[in-house]
Amino acid sequence: MSDLRVAIAGATGAVGAEFLRLLELRNYPIRELRLLASARSAGRTLRFRGEPHPVEELGPDSFRDIDHAFFSAGGGISKTLAPAAAAAGAVVIDNSSAFRYDDDVPLVIPEINPHAAARHRGIIANPNCTTIVALMAVAPLHRRFGVERAVMSSYQAISGAGAQAMQELEDQVRAWTAGEKPQVEHQPHQIAFNLIPRIDAVQENFYTKEEMKFLWEGQKILEHPDLRATATCVRVPVFRSHAVSLNLELRDPASRDAALETLRGAPGVIVEDDPAADIYPTPLALAMRDEVSVGRVRVDPSVAEGRGLALWVVGDQLAKGAALNAVQIGELLARG
Amino acid sequence: MSDLRVAIAGATGAVGAEFLRLLELRNYPIRELRLLASARSAGRTLRFRGEPHPVEELGPDSFRDIDHAFFSAGGGISKTLAPAAAAAGAVVIDNSSAFRYDDDVPLVIPEINPHAAARHRGIIANPNCTTIVALMAVAPLHRRFGVERAVMSSYQAISGAGAQAMQELEDQVRAWTAGEKPQVEHQPHQIAFNLIPRIDAVQENFYTKEEMKFLWEGQKILEHPDLRATATCVRVPVFRSHAVSLNLELRDPASRDAALETLRGAPGVIVEDDPAADIYPTPLALAMRDEVSVGRVRVDPSVAEGRGLALWVVGDQLAKGAALNAVQIGELLARG
Repeated sequence: MSDLRVAIAGATGAVGAEFLRLLELRNYPIRELRLLASARSAGRTLRFRGEPHPVEELGPDSFRDIDHAFFSAGGGISKTLAPAAAAAGAVVIDNSSAFRYDDDVPLVIPEINPHAAARHRGIIANPNCTTIVALMAVAPLHRRFGVERAVMSSYQAISGAGAQAMQELEDQVRAWTAGEKPQVEHQPHQIAFNLIPRIDAVQENFYTKEEMKFLWEGQKILEHPDLRATATCVRVPVFRSHAVSLNLELRDPASRDAALETLRGAPGVIVEDDPAADIYPTPLALAMRDEVSVGRVRVDPSVAEGRGLALWVVGDQLAKGAALNAVQIGELLARG
Repeated sequence: MSDLRVAIAGATGAVGAEFLRLLELRNYPIRELRLLASARSAGRTLRFRGEPHPVEELGPDSFRDIDHAFFSAGGGISKTLAPAAAAAGAVVIDNSSAFRYDDDVPLVIPEINPHAAARHRGIIANPNCTTIVALMAVAPLHRRFGVERAVMSSYQAISGAGAQAMQELEDQVRAWTAGEKPQVEHQPHQIAFNLIPRIDAVQENFYTKEEMKFLWEGQKILEHPDLRATATCVRVPVFRSHAVSLNLELRDPASRDAALETLRGAPGVIVEDDPAADIYPTPLALAMRDEVSVGRVRVDPSVAEGRGLALWVVGDQLAKGAALNAVQIGELLARG
């Protein structure tokens, strides 16, 4: 495929910065790059491949002559502008949840369901960050052993709440070390030295949307409508990698060795699992890494007949959990 | 009961400091207080009720004429010296895991199984901190609905690793804010802005001892040998409250309202559960609190017939998770 004209909607955000880093690093076939953001950020200049690029104000006319449009400017912007971008001929790869549950919008993790991308009608949805990290481990195990139920607890980095929230964690820590009272502005409670067990809106069933996404998106990506799943999503004072503690109930028994072998063979997955030697995934070590890492794999004795597994999965929320997965979707399209 | 002669073995540690705070705050009936620690700390002076108390070196002869001996100096010290203290006539309340699984040593959470304390033969074991926090919510739900299986993921404060580890988190954060490289000394990896998914020794089944304690101690305290449980225990960069994400499979269906009502009626438990208004337990808010707080109560749709509950429980690791629970055991004995 010839070189592409690429737009980034939300270029000045935390995920936007990651798009720029990854498009350059991966030598994405870009002929023209259009950086778009809200009026507040328009006029700024960002660097790509050593060259300054102006940030333009995002609007309905921003996507003329664009091949790939990466959206990460919030669900409201996606809802309004992604259809216009698609109508103008761009393929939109949307990082928001606006279209994830639409039947005619593929929801794609390239290592898991690349075939789904081909069915797009102008918009492809990028899954939720925590869901991507978790499913990178769940999908290969599901293919081999059949995952019937998943219980997930997340440890989510502040990057998932955006650049302002990342700054807030830093500011709170700096205030604390200076002996001052940390200020709370963007998060509902102090996040430095604390945990916030609510992410996204609360549903009628008292689960948050973030928690339900693991079920809704898991069923769609795994093409497994019978998957049962429950999640508890928690913000932790970590900057940029998400972790999940997963408990899986399986159709077939799985030994630890068989599970490790399956995970080692899965694309995009690394296994770090020698806990006695303190080898396991940690968020700091996974920051800026492309892979999702799995460790602490155990056969769960609380499930009969070896049909349960416990594991710990970590991946960079801004990379594989957001921008990298979207860029990989774009690469999939570019390969044709 | 007349006033007591009390010893604290491990008086200079993180839990030791908490013993001093709580014994004073709760007006424990103390006639004489003996503070004991390793040779390294002997000679220091600690204050209790405004008076300086010398720290003496801990040894086999430290417990003559002592009524209640609180041990929190590690499992090795407990193993060596607790039997001697009991033989000398003291009742030992031991915060280590040395005797927790002995049939003739009661393992007591006063709100849950106070009757067990009466069966002691000189030693009563204080349960694991995470187990205490979790069971404070699990026990009342078990009594009403029957808990058949529990899946737990923990978010454990650095206080659980002791005073040096607390200092290490602080030092790492101060180094980071100063633009220096955080030093790693007492924990296997950096804990500032990170997660460490291993606590205590790794067993043959690849679970850690910390994780197995939830099952072993849960079965004993709940007097429920058929309880099935699995845990993943993770250290988080929080100073002193532990949190757990719990998923419970029940014998009988439970509505959210029935679960909340049960928890509201449980001694030592408070309910903070209005997530849309950002009311839920957080570690910072629970620090120095006596109660364990429960929130994020949900009926888990992944379990059939409403027989599943998800919840989030937080309690101060040094207080209810350690010193407070031990002091409450002592009060139980003092009441006779």
